[in-house]
Amino acid sequence: MNTHIAVVGASEATETEQAIATEVGRLIGSRGYVLVTGGLGGVMAAASRGAKDAGGVCIGLLPTSDRTTANEHLTAAIPTGLGELRNGLVVRSADGIIAIGGSWGTLSEIALAMRTGVPIVRIGGWSLTDEKGASIDLPSADCAEDAVRQLEAMIEPRAG
Amino acid sequence: MNTHIAVVGASEATETEQAIATEVGRLIGSRGYVLVTGGLGGVMAAASRGAKDAGGVCIGLLPTSDRTTANEHLTAAIPTGLGELRNGLVVRSADGIIAIGGSWGTLSEIALAMRTGVPIVRIGGWSLTDEKGASIDLPSADCAEDAVRQLEAMIEPRAG
Amino acid sequence: MNTHIAVVGASEATETEQAIATEVGRLIGSRGYVLVTGGLGGVMAAASRGAKDAGGVCIGLLPTSDRTTANEHLTAAIPTGLGELRNGLVVRSADGIIAIGGSWGTLSEIALAMRTGVPIVRIGGWSLTDEKGASIDLPSADCAEDAVRQLEAMIEPRAG
Amino acid sequence: MNTHIAVVGASEATETEQAIATEVGRLIGSRGYVLVTGGLGGVMAAASRGAKDAGGVCIGLLPTSDRTTANEHLTAAIPTGLGELRNGLVVRSADGIIAIGGSWGTLSEIALAMRTGVPIVRIGGWSLTDEKGASIDLPSADCAEDAVRQLEAMIEPRAG
Repeated sequence: MNTHIAVVGASEATETEQAIATEVGRLIGSRGYVLVTGGLGGVMAAASRGAKDAGGVCIGLLPTSDRTTANEHLTAAIPTGLGELRNGLVVRSADGIIAIGGSWGTLSEIALAMRTGVPIVRIGGWSLTDEKGASIDLPSADCAEDAVRQLEAMIEPRAG
Repeated sequence: MNTHIAVVGASEATETEQAIATEVGRLIGSRGYVLVTGGLGGVMAAASRGAKDAGGVCIGLLPTSDRTTANEHLTAAIPTGLGELRNGLVVRSADGIIAIGGSWGTLSEIALAMRTGVPIVRIGGWSLTDEKGASIDLPSADCAEDAVRQLEAMIEPRAG
Repeated sequence: MNTHIAVVGASEATETEQAIATEVGRLIGSRGYVLVTGGLGGVMAAASRGAKDAGGVCIGLLPTSDRTTANEHLTAAIPTGLGELRNGLVVRSADGIIAIGGSWGTLSEIALAMRTGVPIVRIGGWSLTDEKGASIDLPSADCAEDAVRQLEAMIEPRAG
Repeated sequence: MNTHIAVVGASEATETEQAIATEVGRLIGSRGYVLVTGGLGGVMAAASRGAKDAGGVCIGLLPTSDRTTANEHLTAAIPTGLGELRNGLVVRSADGIIAIGGSWGTLSEIALAMRTGVPIVRIGGWSLTDEKGASIDLPSADCAEDAVRQLEAMIEPRAG
């Protein structure tokens, strides 16, 4: 079974975030990975467009029980009807995750990935400090290529 | 978004049930529908093999949280970790369902489909009678081609 | 932890079914078991009323994400937002189940209980026959007291 | 239906965090609210002990499908079998949430609460800053009493 990579990020994203997402998707698709997203707009649609253009497979796990909310780039759309619980399903479905930008939904996915040991790299987004003000380390990247390369290095030992 | 058809049936299935499942899968794949199954063996693997051979897309919604339980024919496998609750997710993901053979898991999917109004056609399997002994009607077919044709007729008005 | 007993049945139930459900609930509450239901009306509300009147604890697992759909007899209501997938959660939460009457939702719960090995006794409802016309055996009872007694005998060895 | 308050926090918690959780639980129980937790040890067990001692109702939504993992203070335990997806169910079940201490699981619950508009107050735990280094505001309290009082003020207008 191919490696599945999730790209998570907000449905309302900046131009820059969407451009990065498209490039991440393109890299995922061109390397033969399956792309998993939440299936909606913004970062999710941008990543799916990139992966589709590169000939990749794009799966969307929608929060609603209605497939019409899916973006137009998906190979298949699963209308989970789980609401925000589908964030956990996206994390669980992934061998590795790239998080783009900051939103509460994205933060929930970062937290669940860290909680369950799914490799994750973030581009941008919020920073965390503990009660003493010390920074909580999260792997982070400056650009799409760096994110994918870091994530591949984190996944490899597992796939072994 | 393409029409998504689920094929449900037991992981331990007879030769006949598997042969029918493969033919159903082949028809689904050749018509350009997305095939959704529970991702395991038996009827699920047989249908996926048929769809894949016809060039179709096959999505498996696994009950475990471990992708290694997936059969080898899937385009993408979602390890839902929901246990038997993923039966409901398979039903929810489908525009129409073909049920092959009889098992408690399959019966749960038939019941959920009838409960939520998802078109379903069965090939073989158990019969139901109400408290007065009257038969509960479920659309049924004798062969793969008949099942797909009936299901298409049931789905069409919705897709319209 | 106390034994948890689920009572499943339709939200639109006959007077007789509701009377039986109330008596089943009364027996569950008076024996100190926790009652689990789907939290809505009909059989669910009737069983909860019986358990509450007997001083018992009643938990409702609602299909919606809105607690206002709960009946008025519950000790606590969990708005799962899982839709019909919460049927599987009711089954999973129970050490034993009593099913009253026939509906597609109830049949899905019977099938999931049989699939996952949760003891179940039914009062009324549909009958099943296999492909050769032979009856599929499900433990059944004529009245509330008989159902509870049978279920206790089925659960005991597990609780041992 | 009574107001349901969730207390979230790690199963491995400091003495101080557990003492605060017990006091929060005591206040919740004595005010007649239903306490919802993840049902395990640490903060969850401590809060449940406090609520139980005050005569309150304590519901545990367990990540496993096995009720034996529950702490001993619960009125009822729902073995959801959803793994870390049950974090979302705890959030969804609550009219308001008090988060104690910092862990990835707790952060996922804070993020989901903020995402879905469930009132939340935290005691201790991590801090968030946005990409420009500005602090992300989360209501926070110094002690149990302050947290409950703040949360009541946030819930009231909804319950009205």
